[in-house]
Parts: sequence; C-alpha cells; structure tokens
Amino acid sequence: MNIAILTSGGDSSGMNPAIKKFVEYSYLKNHTPYFIYDGLEGLIEGKIKKASFKDVSGIIFRGGTIIRSSRSKRWYEKTYRKQAYENLKKHGIDALVILGGDGSFRALDVFYKDFKVPFMGIPATIDNDIPLNDYTIGTDTALNVIRHAIDEIRDTASSFARAFVIEVMGRECGYLALTSAVANGAEMCLIPEVEYSLENLKKRYLNEIKNGRGYFIAIVAEGLKITDKIKEWFEKEIGFEARSTILGHIQRGGSPTVFERLTAAEFIVKAIDHIESSPDKIVTHKNGEFILKDLNEIITSKYALNPEMLKIAAPLMGKE
Amino acid sequence: MNIAILTSGGDSSGMNPAIKKFVEYSYLKNHTPYFIYDGLEGLIEGKIKKASFKDVSGIIFRGGTIIRSSRSKRWYEKTYRKQAYENLKKHGIDALVILGGDGSFRALDVFYKDFKVPFMGIPATIDNDIPLNDYTIGTDTALNVIRHAIDEIRDTASSFARAFVIEVMGRECGYLALTSAVANGAEMCLIPEVEYSLENLKKRYLNEIKNGRGYFIAIVAEGLKITDKIKEWFEKEIGFEARSTILGHIQRGGSPTVFERLTAAEFIVKAIDHIESSPDKIVTHKNGEFILKDLNEIITSKYALNPEMLKIAAPLMGKE
Amino acid sequence: MNIAILTSGGDSSGMNPAIKKFVEYSYLKNHTPYFIYDGLEGLIEGKIKKASFKDVSGIIFRGGTIIRSSRSKRWYEKTYRKQAYENLKKHGIDALVILGGDGSFRALDVFYKDFKVPFMGIPATIDNDIPLNDYTIGTDTALNVIRHAIDEIRDTASSFARAFVIEVMGRECGYLALTSAVANGAEMCLIPEVEYSLENLKKRYLNEIKNGRGYFIAIVAEGLKITDKIKEWFEKEIGFEARSTILGHIQRGGSPTVFERLTAAEFIVKAIDHIESSPDKIVTHKNGEFILKDLNEIITSKYALNPEMLKIAAPLMGKE
Amino acid sequence: MNIAILTSGGDSSGMNPAIKKFVEYSYLKNHTPYFIYDGLEGLIEGKIKKASFKDVSGIIFRGGTIIRSSRSKRWYEKTYRKQAYENLKKHGIDALVILGGDGSFRALDVFYKDFKVPFMGIPATIDNDIPLNDYTIGTDTALNVIRHAIDEIRDTASSFARAFVIEVMGRECGYLALTSAVANGAEMCLIPEVEYSLENLKKRYLNEIKNGRGYFIAIVAEGLKITDKIKEWFEKEIGFEARSTILGHIQRGGSPTVFERLTAAEFIVKAIDHIESSPDKIVTHKNGEFILKDLNEIITSKYALNPEMLKIAAPLMGKE
Repeated sequence: MNIAILTSGGDSSGMNPAIKKFVEYSYLKNHTPYFIYDGLEGLIEGKIKKASFKDVSGIIFRGGTIIRSSRSKRWYEKTYRKQAYENLKKHGIDALVILGGDGSFRALDVFYKDFKVPFMGIPATIDNDIPLNDYTIGTDTALNVIRHAIDEIRDTASSFARAFVIEVMGRECGYLALTSAVANGAEMCLIPEVEYSLENLKKRYLNEIKNGRGYFIAIVAEGLKITDKIKEWFEKEIGFEARSTILGHIQRGGSPTVFERLTAAEFIVKAIDHIESSPDKIVTHKNGEFILKDLNEIITSKYALNPEMLKIAAPLMGKE
Repeated sequence: MNIAILTSGGDSSGMNPAIKKFVEYSYLKNHTPYFIYDGLEGLIEGKIKKASFKDVSGIIFRGGTIIRSSRSKRWYEKTYRKQAYENLKKHGIDALVILGGDGSFRALDVFYKDFKVPFMGIPATIDNDIPLNDYTIGTDTALNVIRHAIDEIRDTASSFARAFVIEVMGRECGYLALTSAVANGAEMCLIPEVEYSLENLKKRYLNEIKNGRGYFIAIVAEGLKITDKIKEWFEKEIGFEARSTILGHIQRGGSPTVFERLTAAEFIVKAIDHIESSPDKIVTHKNGEFILKDLNEIITSKYALNPEMLKIAAPLMGKE
Repeated sequence: MNIAILTSGGDSSGMNPAIKKFVEYSYLKNHTPYFIYDGLEGLIEGKIKKASFKDVSGIIFRGGTIIRSSRSKRWYEKTYRKQAYENLKKHGIDALVILGGDGSFRALDVFYKDFKVPFMGIPATIDNDIPLNDYTIGTDTALNVIRHAIDEIRDTASSFARAFVIEVMGRECGYLALTSAVANGAEMCLIPEVEYSLENLKKRYLNEIKNGRGYFIAIVAEGLKITDKIKEWFEKEIGFEARSTILGHIQRGGSPTVFERLTAAEFIVKAIDHIESSPDKIVTHKNGEFILKDLNEIITSKYALNPEMLKIAAPLMGKE
Repeated sequence: MNIAILTSGGDSSGMNPAIKKFVEYSYLKNHTPYFIYDGLEGLIEGKIKKASFKDVSGIIFRGGTIIRSSRSKRWYEKTYRKQAYENLKKHGIDALVILGGDGSFRALDVFYKDFKVPFMGIPATIDNDIPLNDYTIGTDTALNVIRHAIDEIRDTASSFARAFVIEVMGRECGYLALTSAVANGAEMCLIPEVEYSLENLKKRYLNEIKNGRGYFIAIVAEGLKITDKIKEWFEKEIGFEARSTILGHIQRGGSPTVFERLTAAEFIVKAIDHIESSPDKIVTHKNGEFILKDLNEIITSKYALNPEMLKIAAPLMGKE
C-alpha cells in the first residue's frame, strides 16, 4: 500500500518521532510511505512526496513537525476536497494517517464519506481533550516543559512574599493545569471543568499565611481567561503582591520525552497494522491499551478528567 | 497509626516526591508520619524523627532522598535487628514503608518474621528489575536524563565519522539500555538478557556505511562489562574511530519528571491505604494498576523485559 | 568587622552564589558576616542574623535569594531609617553590602548621608541598566533562560508559516532583547532605546517571504508595551499568522550559569576588600575590570547599549 | 575574495554559530564563503562547496560542526598538501579560516610556508589550552554542561555519606577542572599544572567529617589519569564510600550558550576583517579584546591558568 501521513491543527512535541516511526514501520511492512506537507491545505495543493529514511534521520529529538501543519477553512468546501482527492489519486495514495485533534478527525471523516479514502486518526495535541482516550501525543512533553518552568519560578517565588499565577495551555480543557498543579505541589488550581470557590480559598490562605506560608503558586487554565483577575484577587483579597506568567508556546516545544517517543511509535504501529481492515477509525489509548474507535463514538462522548486527580486537587479549587 | 518511612539501597529520583506524599497523605488519613534517616543503618542506630509538613516543603523537585539511604550488612545479624525493633518500640512506630529494591524488601521481610512489624515495600530503583512489576520509582527520570545526554552527544557524533559507545546503568538488568536504544534511535543495543551477534551487526554496518551512514550510537548495559571491548570492536572490525562514555551517576539525579512524581504519589497512597490490612506486602504496578504482592511471589519470579520492545530492538542486537 | 548583606528590589539568579561567597570570604578575611532578611523592610524590622557556613551550604545552584528581597516605601521616611540604624547598632554591624539596582543604591546613599554607615553596592538585576557598568548579576543566566525558551519555540515556529513575537524582560532597558535577538538569530528586534521602522521591515519581510522565508522570530522589549500590536502587525501587514509569548518570570530563575557564579564571587571579593577604605561606593564591571564608582557619578550618567551589537541588530530594527 | 572555512581536530559547541556568522558576514563584506568538509582530510580530498544562507539556517543552536571535522596524518606529507593546494586553486579559494586548536594552526602555518595561502586561525576547543589567549570557542558551553551534570549529581551525593569523584575533560590542561571546581563549590580539585597534597587534604577532610560534613564532590582533570586512584583513596584513607564518574563526550555537546554564540561571532568578524592584511595569524582573545598573534609567538609561549582562580582553589588541592 501507499500510505500518506499528515499533521493538522496545532503542533505538539512527539509528532516528529511519530513521523519517523511511520516511515520506518511502513517500509518494514512493505508499504510505501508518503508525506503530505502543510496539513489539509497541502493536501488541497498537492504537496505530496514519497518519504525516505533520510527524511527522518535526526528528527527523533526535535519538537514540532517536519511536514508542517495548517488549519484549513477551504477543506469544508467540497470543491477543495475533490481537488485533494485528485491529488491522492495522482500519487496513488491508498490510505491516510493523520496526527491531530478531533477537528482533524472530522475533516477526514467527511472526506471518507465523500471518497472512501481509508484513514486512521491519531490523537496529537497538547490539550489532551479527546473523549474515550487517556493520552494524546505531546502531553508528557508539555507537562515536563511546564514543570521545568515552574521549577525555575519557584526559587524566585520563594525570594519574596508573593503569589505567582501561572497560566498554562489547554484551550477548553483543564488537563494540563490539573496535572501540573498536582505534580508541582501548587497551592491553587483553577480549570474550566470544575467550579471553584475563591471564598473558601481565601479562608484557607489567610490561615496559612498566619502559620507562616511565604508564597503561593497558582495554576490557571487558559480556557478560563481569568489569569489577570486572579492576580488582582491575590493583591486585593489576600494582600500578597502577585505576578502573572503566561507560559505560552514553549509548552508546544522541547525535545520529546522518552514516554512521548515510545507512545508515539506505538500509536503508529497500531494505525498501520489496522488501516486496511478498519478504514475509518481513531486509535485511542485507554488504560494502557490501544483501541480503535469510530469517530462517531468519540464525538458523541465527552472527555473526562481523571477522577483521582480531581479528588487530590479539590482543596486547590477551594472545595471542602 | 504511627507509620515510618525509610529509603534503602541506591537512591533514585522520585524518592523525594514519594516522601512528601507520605507525610501529606499520612496526616490526611489521621496517621502520624515518621522519618527513619540513613536507611536500615539508621533504623539500627535509632535515627527516628516525627515528620512535619515543613520537612517536605520544597522537596518535590529534588532528586535523591532527603532522609538519606544506606546499605547495611549489620542488618543480617539478629542482634542489630533486635536493636532496630527496640528503637521502633521506643518511638511507638506501628508500621514501616520502605522505598528500595528487592534486597530491601527481603530485609524487612526477615524483620517481619522476627517481630511482626507490618511493612509495605515500594519499588524504587533506576534498574527496574523487580519481577511482576512494570515500573520502579526513578525510571522515567533516568530515561530522560539518558535521553538528554544522548541528545547532546548526537551533534558531536554527527560531526565526525565516529561510533559512540554509551554505557547506561541497570546492574544486571538491561531495561534502561533497551528502552534508551529504542527511544533514541540507536544503532546498537547490547543487554545481558539477550544474546547478540556482533557478526551480524558487522555485516549490516558495513553495508550501511557503503550507503552513507556517517556515525553510530551504541547503547550498552553496564551489566555486560564490555563497553571498552565494543569500542575496540568498532575500531578494528568496522574501521570507525570510536569513543566510549559511561553516563554514570547523573542517571540517578535530575528533577523528577511529572510521570515520576505522580506515580510515586500513587504508590504511597496504595501503601498507606492497605498497610493495616496487608502487613507484609510489596506494592507493584502492572498494566496500569497497583497490586499488592507477597514478597515470596516476587522473589521466586523473574522480571521480564517488554517483549514488544525486544522485538523492535532485535535488529540492534544483530538478530535477524 | 561585622558586615551585613541584604538583597533589594527584583531578585536575579546569581544572588545566592554572591551570598555564599560573602559568607565564605568574610570569614577568610576575619570579618563576621551577617544576613539582613527581606531587604530594606527587614532592616527596618531588625531581621538581622549572624551568618554561618551552614546557611550557605547547597545554595550555589539555586536561583532567587535565600535572604529574600523587598521593595520598601517606608525607607523614604527618616523615622524608619532611624529605626534601621538602631537595629544595626544593636547588632554591632559596621558596614553593609547591598545587591540590587540603582534604586537600592540611592536608598543606601541616603542612609550613608544620615548615619555614616559604610556600604558597597553591587549591581544585581536582570535588566542590566546600571550606567558605567557592563554586567549586572543575573544577566548571563537570564539570557540563557531566554535562549532555551527560544530553542523550544523554534521547532514549533518552523512547523507553520508563522510569526512568533516574544516579549522579554528589562523594564525600560533593551539589553536582554537586543542581546537575545542577536544571539538567537531573530528576524526582528524592537527596543525602547532605538527608533525602528516597521515600514522598512515590511518591505524586507515581504521580499524574504517571496524568497521562501517560512517563519519569523521577533524579540520585543517589555518596555515598549507593543507586543500585541506587533502580533497584529504581522497578521495585517505581513499576512502571517502570528503568536505572542511573554516569557515572564522564568527569566529571573534557573540555576546560575558558571559565568554568573564566578562574576558574582568577584564582585563580592572587590566589595569586601575595599569596604573599609571606600565607605560609599558602587562596584562596577567595565571592560573586564572591577572599578569602584561614586553613586553620584552613576546616577548622573546614562547606561549605554553595546554599539557593536546595535550595529549588528540594526537590520532587525528596520534601519538601512 | 573567496574565503573557505574548515573545522579541525576535536569539535566544540560554538563551531556552528561561528560557521553561520562566517557565511553571513562574508556576504555582507562582499566576499564569497566556501565550506571545506571533513577538515584537513576533506581539503586533501577536495570536498569544497560554495556556502549559502540556506546552509546555515537553523544551526545556531546546534552543538558540533555541520561541516564536520577530522584529524589528518596525511597532511604532514607534502604530496597531500600539494593536492590540497590544487583543490583550492581549482575552486579559486583565496584564503582560509580554520577553527581548531594549536595543532590545526601549525598545519596551516606549514601550508602557508609551502604555498602562501593566507589563513586565520580561530581557537576552538573545549580544552582552553591556547597560550596568550583567554577564551577558546566551546568553553562556556562545556562549563555549563559540567555544571548541569554536577547539579544532578549533587542531590544523589547528599543522599549518602559518599564521595563523588568527577573526571572532566581538558587533555593536559586543567582549565575545565579548575573552573568547574570553583564554580560548583567542590571540595577537591586536582589538575596537571599544580602539585597537590593528598596528605593535607586528608587532614582537612577528617576534621570536616568530625564537624558534620556529609559528602564530597571531587573534580579531577582527565590529564592526571588518577580518577580511579582518587576514588580508592577516599575509600581507604577517608573511610567514605566513593563513586567515580567520567563525564565524557557530553562536555562537547549542548546548545551553545549565549556567551558562546556572541564570542564565536566576534572571532569571525575579526578574522574576516583582517585576513587580507594579515595572512598568517591567529585571532586571540585577551582581557576582553581580540588581538592578532603570530603562530610562532603562540607556540613558543605557554598557556597560563588564571592566578586568581588558582588562589581560590588552592585549599581544594591541599595547599596551605
């Protein structure tokens, strides 16, 4: 088979190891791997190239995606999808593997309905917001980049009586914020999925200050859009000088962690092994296993945060 | 209950987050946490202290173990174990949690047989050599320290036509070497558990050199004690200038990764939740679950490397 | 002599190695070192303690300042300075060493005029904005933290046709932005000290895009307060999707670099060696030498950016 | 002019930023830059290529050298130098810039005497062993890689009563060991240039152990070849369990530091600005200035370690 890979939507660290494995494992299984550059836009434009071992040499430790990504509005017009299909036919591509989020999966699902081009979706986004799935490529690296940043902020935080309000990525999903708050021993964790009580937190903080607490580290999910408000809250309500920091795009970068690289490779193996028999599926990772799911099942479900971690973090949200 | 924690044998990154969680979770569950300093030697000497929140503030991001570790020969004389028991009684300690490897678990098992002091063993060693168990505390951090070192060596490797032979830790166990070879895209992986064929590797390498291969990264497990021999082999048999590097103790250090911190905390929760009902057990982590095991079951089993990973790495060992 | 050290204003990485050297070198020279905690506020409050070797063990690799810092408004009322003076007398302190910026030096200069307490000022701020001085403690570490962040952003930048607008610290001073732009090969560098021409940059960029430029990295000094405006400019005028990132407080953190640690130690040696003979001076670092300056000379001068570097960066500002 | 650059001998981090600057500054000054791949061996083989901006895009943050390096024995036979000269003539190369150590400079000096091909030598080696010169490209990065490794070892060291003996690179030169010992607060520093007294160190250490010292970090220069002996000395004479670690080739790698990148660029500017007027010189860096020196002056001098730093480190060598 001729199988092409593309990356779509926001990039995440781990896409490159996945691309490398895609090329190597395709050849091992006697398929021919192709690259589609620039995501769906590149598919419309016909930016398709046969991939070689040389293309993927030395990329395992690089963030980002060497085949680049894009967001495409044109894709939702059938004319452009038709054009994309013609491009695939021209290169003899039999099937597609796409790394991205649920928007990307929908895009290929529509395409499958149009032209019956088999595809496998692999969750790759630092947001970790895919339902029925525990892990999306990029998450472990993002969590460790955040950890490293907080390690650096901690010393400066403890040099003052200060509150540091740190905004982490995740769009509408609080996964990165929740996990980071627990893993870094933060004092506050605010996420879109859970109600929080500043009133309760205030009571607790004022009490802790009396007992000698010298500084606060607060993790706030970007989806809440309240980072500055929380900074002011610390100054007005808690009486602590406060600073806010938006970690921003460093969270998408960094050399992929070992876990990232290994998991990315396993996603690819699962995708290639089943792309012929299951032409329209998403590879999910649940309780340590890789399971194929229908897109429909995924988009009609809701992703859920780990209940154990929510329990641990409850005090950081002002829940009693 | 009064529960004491101690760390024993080689240290590993992740012990400190475990110690922090031990203190916090003990208080949450209305137990009183104690520290035993300097491992079993400290237990013999009576270095026991009630632990406070303050003791564990700011340790989550530190490698090593703040309560220090040791190896004890005296422990195997009953007189000293008796003395240790007296020390525990003096402080009213009801149960022990020990972070270490199988040697440490045996030490407490003997002690349990002597004096019926309940204990829970938590696997903590960068070697990842505990049977019936997937994960030991320290492994994810060690793997990422190794990754970082190889990332740094890679650029210098590609600046020459050279072979870099990198020795990684693990004592008799090839886990770190195997996983690192796969995760870092190495060309050679030699471990104690699997026969390798230098003859086959030579054939393959000479062929690859003809096709333009510019450098080699070889990962060798310390247990084989052949690092220098492999360096010479590259020079004599392959005709490549070679360098060897023993990564050494940096592999035990480094700020614990996010996965490390979270897993360490989960081990502790499991241990404290069951220490009363199951007084003589090891907490294991298998297929994503935490399971209590009898020491006997563990020491009569053999740890096994991941068969999938062995398959992937087979060509790096010269297996056809 | 009894010499006390305090840190004042914003913290910077390198303060801790300076504090360590202060203690060690004081004892070597048969002085007695004291700590004043919490900066000038702590001096008013009498938070003074004799310092020991043990206090500074293991701090050489930590960012921030273990004796903490503050900003004090009360200091400008003579009553409080009087109180501070009484505190010094009570502990028998003969002289002060202060790590901070020009505001901190003025504070002690006023104090010297009041009570004739000898002091030495040591420039410590990541802004590097002290006149007649090349280096302030914290700068080399901050530059390398910025470098590391840009290294991580670069891979994600090259995964899209995008402009990344990165805001770096420095208050009114463009030093960090200028140096970072040159050291990281940025395409744009905007700082408060130099006029820039977006018109010229636009011409150049549009031309470069025609020749295949795939992404832009723009470094903008925080003092300009135009980060978001530049992001919009890229989208409207250049037609490139843009992202902005404010690096924020990670720039104050991080383990001090080797250069930082060595330079911090040399500042301290110079200060202690001359504090008796020159009771009211600032230690400056100019062309590789350490020179004592009168505060007056400093505050009536203007700091200057390196003209060589400005020349190199001129094209990044749209200068022809 | 057509100017070619080559890298020779051991690689060091900072060579790539120098190569990038070489290409950019050559074009700015209306020269045409060329690459010679694989050092002097490549020059003999005629591996010469005109360099473009594209060749150096994205290399500023990479260790190693993209034009690769080598050691050449053939160079010392005139036949091969003749062949090299013919290759240069064929490509119309007017002058050479070489990054390397004194051996590389001698090689080009001989060549200059043969064929009058103008060259500029730029010191690039992590050993920092060039006489009359303070800084060689690669040193600041190597020092910070060592610092990072010691930061990681420190936590594990403090988890035991142990001595860690760390061997750092530098061949016959103790610069890296001396600077690292001072910058990292080590307890022992042994280098080839200075006599040390284990007897005195023993007295001091035994005394410190009585006063509570818990661990030792010893830095030993590779040139002494006594790392294992010192490990045994700690065990036998001091009674401390000891571990030795040879940091090895990670010291040549790592993303070049900011100081490295800026200094590398300045070396290049100086070399290109004067290559026509001074056809047979070495660019040296002394007291903050870049100065051209005759090779003869360099090879008849002896490099000297910083006397201030030697004074600071004297107690770590057992000097009273």
